[in-house]
This record gives sequence, C-alpha cells and structure tokens, in this order.
Amino acid sequence: MSLKGKMLIAQGGGPTAVINQSLVGAILEARRNPNVTEVYGALRGVDGIVNENFLDLDFETEENLERVASTPSSALLSTRAKPDREYCRRMFEVIRHHDVRYFYYIGGNDSSDTVRIVKEFADRADYDLVAVHIPKTIDNDLMENDHTPGFGSAARYVTQVFQGVNQDNRSLEGVYIGIVMGRHAGYLTAASALAKTYEDDGPHLIYLPEVPFVMENFLADIKEVYERLGRCVVAVSEGICDDKGNPIITKLVEAESDAHGNVQLSGTGALGDRLSQEIKNGLGISRVRVDTYGYPQRSFAGVVSDVDAREAREVGAMAAKYGRDGLSGSVVIRRTGDYVVEYDLVDLEAVAAKTKVMPKNFINKKGNHVTEAFIKYVKPLVGSSLPETARLRSPQVERTFHQKMENTGE
Amino acid sequence: MSLKGKMLIAQGGGPTAVINQSLVGAILEARRNPNVTEVYGALRGVDGIVNENFLDLDFETEENLERVASTPSSALLSTRAKPDREYCRRMFEVIRHHDVRYFYYIGGNDSSDTVRIVKEFADRADYDLVAVHIPKTIDNDLMENDHTPGFGSAARYVTQVFQGVNQDNRSLEGVYIGIVMGRHAGYLTAASALAKTYEDDGPHLIYLPEVPFVMENFLADIKEVYERLGRCVVAVSEGICDDKGNPIITKLVEAESDAHGNVQLSGTGALGDRLSQEIKNGLGISRVRVDTYGYPQRSFAGVVSDVDAREAREVGAMAAKYGRDGLSGSVVIRRTGDYVVEYDLVDLEAVAAKTKVMPKNFINKKGNHVTEAFIKYVKPLVGSSLPETARLRSPQVERTFHQKMENTGE
Repeated sequence: MSLKGKMLIAQGGGPTAVINQSLVGAILEARRNPNVTEVYGALRGVDGIVNENFLDLDFETEENLERVASTPSSALLSTRAKPDREYCRRMFEVIRHHDVRYFYYIGGNDSSDTVRIVKEFADRADYDLVAVHIPKTIDNDLMENDHTPGFGSAARYVTQVFQGVNQDNRSLEGVYIGIVMGRHAGYLTAASALAKTYEDDGPHLIYLPEVPFVMENFLADIKEVYERLGRCVVAVSEGICDDKGNPIITKLVEAESDAHGNVQLSGTGALGDRLSQEIKNGLGISRVRVDTYGYPQRSFAGVVSDVDAREAREVGAMAAKYGRDGLSGSVVIRRTGDYVVEYDLVDLEAVAAKTKVMPKNFINKKGNHVTEAFIKYVKPLVGSSLPETARLRSPQVERTFHQKMENTGE
Repeated sequence: MSLKGKMLIAQGGGPTAVINQSLVGAILEARRNPNVTEVYGALRGVDGIVNENFLDLDFETEENLERVASTPSSALLSTRAKPDREYCRRMFEVIRHHDVRYFYYIGGNDSSDTVRIVKEFADRADYDLVAVHIPKTIDNDLMENDHTPGFGSAARYVTQVFQGVNQDNRSLEGVYIGIVMGRHAGYLTAASALAKTYEDDGPHLIYLPEVPFVMENFLADIKEVYERLGRCVVAVSEGICDDKGNPIITKLVEAESDAHGNVQLSGTGALGDRLSQEIKNGLGISRVRVDTYGYPQRSFAGVVSDVDAREAREVGAMAAKYGRDGLSGSVVIRRTGDYVVEYDLVDLEAVAAKTKVMPKNFINKKGNHVTEAFIKYVKPLVGSSLPETARLRSPQVERTFHQKMENTGE
C-alpha cells in the first residue's frame, strides 16, 4: 500500500505516567514510513484538531522525544471535550484540508468512539484515511485488552503507597483508609493487594465499584479486623456504588459533572471524610485516618512500571505499523504467556464507548478483597524491582521488672 | 570510659522513610562496643519502655537489618503517648532494673524532651546512664540542625508529586491545589518549588504556616496566575494559620487533638475542600481540583533521598559513638560546605520541645513563594537523580483551514 500524506496524532482524556511513550513510539515508527510526508501533533486532543492547533513534530530530535517519553502526562496536552457527530465532522474537514492520511488518537473508550466516527465521515466522503485508536487508561477498563497502558504504572504507585501506609498504620495503629481512583472498574484499587508481604499486612479489606457497597457490612468487616489485629488498612475505590449503581459520593456532595456526564470523583476528600465519620461514630474507634490519593496516581514523576512503559511504547509503534499497512482499528494487548504479550488490531466498535469491569473470579466471595487469580494477573504488570518491606525478627525479652513488681505487691 | 551494660533503643512520633536507617546505624555501631552487653529495642517508643516490651536485637542478622533499614516507617513501632514526669520516672525505673546504660531515642523535639527528663532522673539517682536523642522528622523543625533526617526523603516525594501534577494541570488546566504536611514549619511545602523546570511550571504559589493566611490575598494571587497562564498549581501547607496563629483548619472542622495537644491536620480532606469551594465561588473558575497528600509523604515505599538515607544512618551511628564515649545529648547535623555535613552533639535542652520555622530569607516578599536561597538550601537534601520533565519543542503549523474559512466567509 502507498497512501501518501500527513500523519496526525493526539492525546485525549486523563493523562498517565506512560502516555508519552505511546506518542513517541508512534512518531518514531512513522518516521520510518516514506509515505508519511509530515508528522503533526494536535494540541489538546480533539479540541486541537477542530481548532487546527498543530505542532510540526518533524522538528523534534530523538533525544528530546526520549526525554518527553519518560515525562508523565500528555505532552500534547489533553481535553475533556466530548465530540458529538457535528464536532467529528469538523474534525474530518480539518483532517482532509491538511491532507492527513494517518490519524492516531491515544485515549480511552471515549477517544476510541471519536476515532470511529471520524473514520465514518472519511469513508462516506471516499477519503482514504487510516484511523487507529491507541489504548491508554489507568482504569484498565478497555474491552478486548488484557490490560491497558498506563494501568501498570498507576498500579505500581498504588502498591508502593499501600506498602508504606501499611507500615505507618502498623506503627501507630488505628484504622486507615486509602481512597483509590476508578470510576467503574476496580482494578487500580485491587492492585493495592500487591502491598501485602506478611500475613497480617494490609490492605486487610478492599472495596470495589463492582460490588454493591453496604455501610453495615463495611463497618462489620473493619470491626472484625480491628479486633483481631488492633489495626486495619482499607482500600476503597472512589467509584463504590450502592445496590442501584449510584455512586456513594453523590449522596455526600453536590458533585460536579464533566462533558461526558461523569461525576467528579477525584480532587475532593468528601467520600473519605464521610467514611471516616461513619467508623468513628459506628465503631467508637478514635484514630481513623483517610487519604484520598488523587492525581499523583496517574501522573507521579518517577514511579513507572518498566513493563508498562515498554508496552505503551509498543502500542504506539504498532499503531504506526498497522497504519503503514493501511489498517484502521484499535490496537489491543493480548496476554499469550506468563508473562508475554502480543498486539492485535480490532474493530473500533469492539472498544468504543464500552467499559470492562473486573470479572467475578478476581473478587473474593465476601466482596471485600481480591483472589489469588487477580494477584497472578496483576503482578507482572507493575514491573520489576518493587520495593521490599522487612520486619525485625527478634524474640521478646522476659518482663522481669513487672514480675518483680507483682511479687513485691507494688 | 568503660561503662558496661545494656543498650536500649526506641523510635517515637510519626514515622519517616529513613527512620530505620538510624535504628540500624545505632545497632551496628553498638555491636562494635564491647561494653554493650546486649542490645534491646523497645516496642512502641516510650510505651514499650514503661511496659517493658523489649526485643532482644542481638538476634538480628545484618542481612535482615539492612532490609529493615530500607523499609519505611518505624520497625520498632511507635506511639503518640506524651510522657509526663511520672511516666519518665517509671521509664527510668525499668531502665535501671535492666541495667541499661546506653539509652537512644529516635524522634522529634518531644522525644528529645523525654530523653532529657529520663536522664535527669538517672543523674539524681546517681545512676550512670548515657542518654542520646537521635533526630528525625519530616517537618525539618528541630533547633540546632541544618536539617533533619526524614525531611529529605519527604521533600523528594513532594517534589516528584508536584512534577507530576504540574504536568497534569498543564494538560487539563484549571486550578490545582496540593495540601502538604507541616504543622508549624513550611519546609516540606516549600520543597514543592523544586518541581519547577520551565519558567511557567508550577507550583506557581506556595502558602506556608510562617505567613499569616489571608483568604482575599490567596484568591487574588490565584486570579493573577490563572489569567496569565490559564492554569494555576498551588502548594498549601496543612498548617496555614490566620494572623492570630490559629490553624485555618480549626475553623472548618471539629478537629481532633492528640496527647501533645496537636490538632489533627492530616487524614482529612476538609481544608482542601474548603479552599476549593472558595475558589469556585470567589473566582468563578469551574475546574478546581484539590489533593491532600497525607501519609504517603512520610512513608511511601521506594522514594528515598540517597543523601537523607545516608545521613539518617550516620546520625544513628554517631549517637552510638558518642554513647561509647560516655556523652549524652542530642545529635545534630551541621552543613559545613556545598554540600558537606558534619555531626555534633548538643545539650538536650537546646533541642527539646522547641520548634524551628523557616527563616525570613527563605520566603519571598509577597509571602506566596520561596526564594533562591531556599532552593539552594533544599536542593542537595532531596538526593541525586531526580526525575526530569521535558516538553515538545516543535513550532506551530499555520492555520490554513481557518484562514480559508474566513476568506470564503464560512
């Protein structure tokens, strides 16, 4: 195939620690394709396409691209705009005007849907356009993918957070709750389970959006752990819902919604503060601490899964390879061994605007922790050389002072 | 000198990422002292001394001690108990009963005061006891010290957080506020300034406990940055106070206090949520996001300043060396070059129950950021190999589509 023309690439939705790896993977691979006349990057996702805000990426040195690749968050900036059909039509008009023949969009399921609609406009206009969706999301909720780029690094961050707060809670006791990102899928919250080394390490309890949240059960679970260990570490997804599927947080605050109708879950401590109050009042435990981890989960600089970084780079490169061969679709990651992955291209419809949640066999029967099957699934994704935690192993000294006091009746 | 007897070591107050380095430094150095007959560790700080909960640390292998050294949080566990004189007297009784002659306590200024009182009881009873306070605190607020072990690693974590959230905010815009730990001293919040690489990087504004917080100024500052850059990243200390020295957070929630009379500042999102509301209402900016970083700042596993880890190890080792020579006091760190430190021993009175805050020359005139003098001070403390952030440098493409549209009147 020899479709000659420009390439246009953009990044959409929430940033990740490795989304720039995909950007750089696609750019470098495209540079090897003689049919790509120029490589443009749209600023602020779809917004930059409609408003024709393009960077001419041919000017980038490989050295700077490598530095950008290891910088968290979207180097081409992002947007929360949700394109309707008219918006997509205008995107297509700009794409046609610039003789763009290769269109790559790095994003989640909403971004995939946008690519699908733009490609439809091109097809109807008999305009040859290759359109490829490159997956990313820390939520790990894209259909057809074993997992998504961005998830592994966020999961590694969450693991390291819980390794630390578990030690902290062991040291000062009480109940500790960590609120983890995840609107519909609990994968990221569930990854906290990797923090466990010793049998009595936290997180002792994990609450996911996939399991209806019942306050009484939550309190009873904490009571049981607290009475047994004198402490309790809990991981709670910001997206926990009641049995009707309504987010618990909407009962607490007048939540803000974005253009996708998504209620704001992050960037507020409301859910955590409410849960803390319930535990103090309901269980009479005085030391209850809650952290809502927020944005560092997706953009902390310097905590990256090497496996995630490599795969993010590869989905970008593969997109450009599929594009070179004239193939449109969504790049997906398939696990083909323990641990090996392969890449594939599926129809945009298979990924667009759908959400994958945790399968039943990843969640324990009581719905308050994960299974070994999940641990086996998630462990390779967080990468190599996780920090280790260790404890002192010395025996206790005999309490002779207190024995003496008792004997002398003091 | 040849004072023969046991050594007792304990850890108090809030954990840090490197407090176990000090523990291990003291233990290993003590093993070289033939006059130390046994090395005991008290569990849960002063509580473990009064209740005679000791581990016989001679059983620890060096291999396990090294693993413990690199594990965050107090391996001997901690306590928030604040000993009064009677409590200290009982500590001394237990110490005497076990023929402890070397007493080391790793902690902040409250811990230093405890060591001072216990030593007083020993002196009055003509009991030969070496008592050394080993400094630690992420707040960096101990007198006589250029800086304290634990601060550098926490500062590194805060730097990496702001490197990431600055990229995130650049990508999706709006106002972002990060609430950083620090009750009276703003050092940790101020360390966020190290995240700046490009001229327009955040944090654009920094609010410290040392500067009285005025809501109108806060809003005006944010408005100015937001109008100039279309975004704003703000670092706020959890300990910000009004002009009468009352913490802003106490006006917002019925705050809980500990045995030291310290109001609970961490483990709640109340301050952040309130500031967010003020900005939304006062400035009409819709996208305002707040994270309260909480406990990961002091116990995140895997983000450690190599300089901090080394110095934490050395203050522990130095304490044992001073002890061997029969000297009591508080180990302090002095900066003697750029960058070199030396250790010294000062009277416990000089450190005990006092608080060091940021000097005026570290805070800018407007009281909403730091100075170059502070950057020079803090930079070596966060250690080597900080993550780097990079941006694309390509030129913008001419907007020919929009020009055409304008020309054709579309």
